[in-house]
Amino acid sequence: MQGVMAWRLMRRKAFSTISKAFKSFSGYPTTRSPSLLELDLPDNWTPNPTTATTTAIPHFQNHAASRQTAALIDGRLMAEEIRSGIASEIKRMRDATGKVPGLAVILVGNRKDSQTYVRNKIKACEEVGITSLMAELPDKCGEDEVLDAVLSFNENPSVHGILVQLPLPQHLDEEKILNAVSLEKDVDGFHPINMGNLAMRGREPLFVPCTPRGCIELLLRSGVQIMGKKAVVIGRSNIVGLPTSLLLQRHHATVTVIHAFTKNAEQITQEADIVVSAVGVPNLVRGFWLKPGAVVIDVGTSPVEDPGSEYGYRLTGDVCYEEAVKVVSAITPVPGGVGPMTIAMLLCNTVDSAKRAFGFS
Amino acid sequence: MQGVMAWRLMRRKAFSTISKAFKSFSGYPTTRSPSLLELDLPDNWTPNPTTATTTAIPHFQNHAASRQTAALIDGRLMAEEIRSGIASEIKRMRDATGKVPGLAVILVGNRKDSQTYVRNKIKACEEVGITSLMAELPDKCGEDEVLDAVLSFNENPSVHGILVQLPLPQHLDEEKILNAVSLEKDVDGFHPINMGNLAMRGREPLFVPCTPRGCIELLLRSGVQIMGKKAVVIGRSNIVGLPTSLLLQRHHATVTVIHAFTKNAEQITQEADIVVSAVGVPNLVRGFWLKPGAVVIDVGTSPVEDPGSEYGYRLTGDVCYEEAVKVVSAITPVPGGVGPMTIAMLLCNTVDSAKRAFGFS
Repeated sequence: MQGVMAWRLMRRKAFSTISKAFKSFSGYPTTRSPSLLELDLPDNWTPNPTTATTTAIPHFQNHAASRQTAALIDGRLMAEEIRSGIASEIKRMRDATGKVPGLAVILVGNRKDSQTYVRNKIKACEEVGITSLMAELPDKCGEDEVLDAVLSFNENPSVHGILVQLPLPQHLDEEKILNAVSLEKDVDGFHPINMGNLAMRGREPLFVPCTPRGCIELLLRSGVQIMGKKAVVIGRSNIVGLPTSLLLQRHHATVTVIHAFTKNAEQITQEADIVVSAVGVPNLVRGFWLKPGAVVIDVGTSPVEDPGSEYGYRLTGDVCYEEAVKVVSAITPVPGGVGPMTIAMLLCNTVDSAKRAFGFS
Repeated sequence: MQGVMAWRLMRRKAFSTISKAFKSFSGYPTTRSPSLLELDLPDNWTPNPTTATTTAIPHFQNHAASRQTAALIDGRLMAEEIRSGIASEIKRMRDATGKVPGLAVILVGNRKDSQTYVRNKIKACEEVGITSLMAELPDKCGEDEVLDAVLSFNENPSVHGILVQLPLPQHLDEEKILNAVSLEKDVDGFHPINMGNLAMRGREPLFVPCTPRGCIELLLRSGVQIMGKKAVVIGRSNIVGLPTSLLLQRHHATVTVIHAFTKNAEQITQEADIVVSAVGVPNLVRGFWLKPGAVVIDVGTSPVEDPGSEYGYRLTGDVCYEEAVKVVSAITPVPGGVGPMTIAMLLCNTVDSAKRAFGFS
């Protein structure tokens, strides 16, 4: 596979890097030593764009549907059930306390995709009865302006969740801004305290990040047993891969995290009962990567050119769906799998936060 | 293996538990839902004490030494080198600033083992020139007394590291007390913010927990390549297993965490290039668990009856050393491997903290 070959090349470069790191490591270590803590190398997954994996596979609608064997894990349907449950929770809350949850969204700049995501989230809030506030800031705004917006939402008692739409423009310090969000309103669950408490046994984070929470809900609501199963998480991002691996381990799966420096990613994935892929490389995970009967959660959502589609492109997952459906026992589609659940989990986190604020259960 | 059979039994019990959890999961989820976050089951590794694995293996000194093939990773020697490096760092610091690092230890109750550990740590501090302060509290003391001790050390500018010796007496809230330790003085690295920043890519924890840091130092100083290697961490405790797995992943190993609910722990371990075991079950990891040429870091330190020894017992690791040395390429002994490095890393963390406080580099 060209893609895998590309990683191999990178690994060779990487090895020369680490040997340098070892040389620089002799003598007295400090916490800041990069060789102790981290070798700062990018997870560059992008396979050669000319390879068959990303372009040559016909669209599912066009063929192979009849040979599908896997059960479809319908994220849209589950998200609908959850949202209607949330709507009645909020009604119950309003009847009992006269108050409703509030979500504040901070959008910096005018990226079309970010604007769409934010619009969808606000629409979803309105549908279930969550009040939404919005702070729109220009692309060129200063860090203080963004921090001021965060702090004012922190102090606003009608706001129970604060969402900073990512990515932020390059000139802004994302870590500084995310850390400024009040822990009690961190509905994205990206604050290091929430992440630390998610990682540590016997601790309870106030919020679990939305997409990982959505992945686990998809498994639980499909009746998939997690305990004692071999789970592979492909990708180790702070917002999906890492927290998903921590959640699966909390459910007593034996978890292996695969990343761009992993050798034989296919063989390792072939042993997994549960596969969660979140790297954003279309069709990276081919049918032969998967164990017959495995359950697949596909977080990847990448636009791929498709002249046959209305907009000239279609959204494609990390997993080659047409091949996977013939091998695995259950799989999430893209779109219509993890995506809708992510927004539903954001609503859940916001309601949970409001319940804590109101002392309402 | 009796031990493995014991876990299997437990897994069967566990499965019935999880199926209940699924039943209770229907409907609207909340962050507090135990079925989403965690099934609170103990990692009970203890194999049947009558099995051969824990009692029938003769002591290394008694035989098989001649057939040893593995290189010994000498933790005592490396720790000595590190401590002498620290001593000169502290001399340089004193000459330049007139100040030295200070470590404060809080010991509650009169556990013999805790008293020994604390004594060793204080002795190690004195040897390198770190001032040590000590707060000894009676077993029956109230939580406020312990918290007061923590807070006074937090405010004391001559204290750069605070160590709460664990375990604390049952009636004290360990989480509350550990979270009270100032983040800047958390030389144990157990604060959730430090753990969260250790877990998250692109973040830097102020401190890395001492034993995991020691394990990585042992590998780095032995010239073991971590990047791209398969690593297995056996055990998932907050103080060793979890942070060690996070550190190995930061070094771009492909990490699998094995716990008491893992099926086929032997087969998974057989595939690992690097094995770190931290469960405290003597001789749990047999020779046939290990891949020829693997590197083994044995964190386990359990007393095992040995009439031949001076005190009637000897310290034994998780790994059956006599079998492992014939299979692997390098291994840490018990005692004399990870133990000495843990104390050396505590000294490192304390010096790092003082350097930050003094703005000295």
